[in-house]
Amino acid sequence: MMTSRYKLTLSYDGHDFHGFQSQPGQRTIQGTVEEILKQMTKGQEVRVFGSGRTDAGVHSVGQVIHFDYPGREIPAANMIKALNSQLPMDMVFTDCEIVDKDFHSRFSVKGKWYRYRVSLDGFVNPFKRFYTGHYPYPVDVEKMQEAAKDLLGRHDFTSFAASGGQIEDKVRDMYYVNVALDEENNEVIMDFIATGFLYNMVRILVATLLEIGNGRRPVHDLKRVIAAKNRLEVQQTAQACGLYLYHVFYEEVPRKYRLDLDL
Amino acid sequence: MMTSRYKLTLSYDGHDFHGFQSQPGQRTIQGTVEEILKQMTKGQEVRVFGSGRTDAGVHSVGQVIHFDYPGREIPAANMIKALNSQLPMDMVFTDCEIVDKDFHSRFSVKGKWYRYRVSLDGFVNPFKRFYTGHYPYPVDVEKMQEAAKDLLGRHDFTSFAASGGQIEDKVRDMYYVNVALDEENNEVIMDFIATGFLYNMVRILVATLLEIGNGRRPVHDLKRVIAAKNRLEVQQTAQACGLYLYHVFYEEVPRKYRLDLDL
Repeated sequence: MMTSRYKLTLSYDGHDFHGFQSQPGQRTIQGTVEEILKQMTKGQEVRVFGSGRTDAGVHSVGQVIHFDYPGREIPAANMIKALNSQLPMDMVFTDCEIVDKDFHSRFSVKGKWYRYRVSLDGFVNPFKRFYTGHYPYPVDVEKMQEAAKDLLGRHDFTSFAASGGQIEDKVRDMYYVNVALDEENNEVIMDFIATGFLYNMVRILVATLLEIGNGRRPVHDLKRVIAAKNRLEVQQTAQACGLYLYHVFYEEVPRKYRLDLDL
Repeated sequence: MMTSRYKLTLSYDGHDFHGFQSQPGQRTIQGTVEEILKQMTKGQEVRVFGSGRTDAGVHSVGQVIHFDYPGREIPAANMIKALNSQLPMDMVFTDCEIVDKDFHSRFSVKGKWYRYRVSLDGFVNPFKRFYTGHYPYPVDVEKMQEAAKDLLGRHDFTSFAASGGQIEDKVRDMYYVNVALDEENNEVIMDFIATGFLYNMVRILVATLLEIGNGRRPVHDLKRVIAAKNRLEVQQTAQACGLYLYHVFYEEVPRKYRLDLDL
């Protein structure tokens, strides 16, 4: 049957979802979109493919999905309107285009950008409780920024992969890491761009960087931990609720985000 | 019996509350705090007084309450810790002091500051759905700022009071109004400081200012509406979820927030 391939960008508040991937009896991103597509096609199953999974509680402002819609082609502007009119309030499509069949939301990925927000407030701010991690201890952001440089380049990130990931090859290229203090909001914002990330890798990196910022680890401890290739070197995983899938690159990651090339 | 009077500042995410005031069978701010105090006193009722009510869905970063705690005086630092350890995650006390008995959270008020956030996004942003109003139409913020000046000074605000308020005297002094575009977040932020506000007054003012910004009313229409002293002049009320009780003044409102004096 004739189908058209749609590529869509998706924001979601991950708080009320059991992650991206469809699971029987659970509210998930994939399941929600597939259910709406099934209604639109009057019962035909349309499989949704994401750039990757996100865990329960993890947010997105730049998740990308694709699906093949059967029958007569619907203009992209109408498709996004139709989908958004059916979506619950904690999800929204922000972009839609019709693409060639050689585009695949997962296999065409050239890089991914994750952002992590940590609140340094002494108490848990009610407005941030689902939207930032919480680290109520002193941190030296300059130390964290210095430490972050040790992540740049090609590394085997075995020490930062939670069990549960199914990928054998743990080597990734880390293009960009930035640690910034948002003084107005009393938050630390951490950005990571890489060819890809292992299971829980960003949250484990964040936890380690915070320990460095707090002085519990030496500034260049990441070098040692990477070399050890041992998950037991890092015990902590930062909370899911501070993590945002920020952007997915399908073109080569632009040079301004290739700090690894400056080394 | 001996009691000590505590004054506390309180932030809350109003989304899951049926407003400030205790109501049987409903989750409210006052009810939640009174329940915790009852546990702390092993069953004695301690009445909580707020600077004023907030409606269901309305937030606070600066609500002030007081209560008289029976028995031996507990240091303020211990009281705030004890209360915060019992509070649900969508409320937090940010300040606590022991005050004289002539302080009253409501009757000692010299001014109140409300903030309203409106998202101009074309779609409802999932991360803002409970935290901003939504106005997906073009607005001219300079027109709104010009219009806001008509609110400054002493006026009878009858046209902006929803039915349901029990206060006869509708005259208030508006000290400060500011309308600002937050370009990064694509929001309009509106601040209002006055001796006090009538029922739904801020939300009705916001709706009217947005109509002016959108060109549906002339820039100086507020003058006419104020003079009319007729609620039927304004049909719209902005959504509760964009409104924040921002600060309560117990000293005279500082001169920098007294734009009315510049006129």
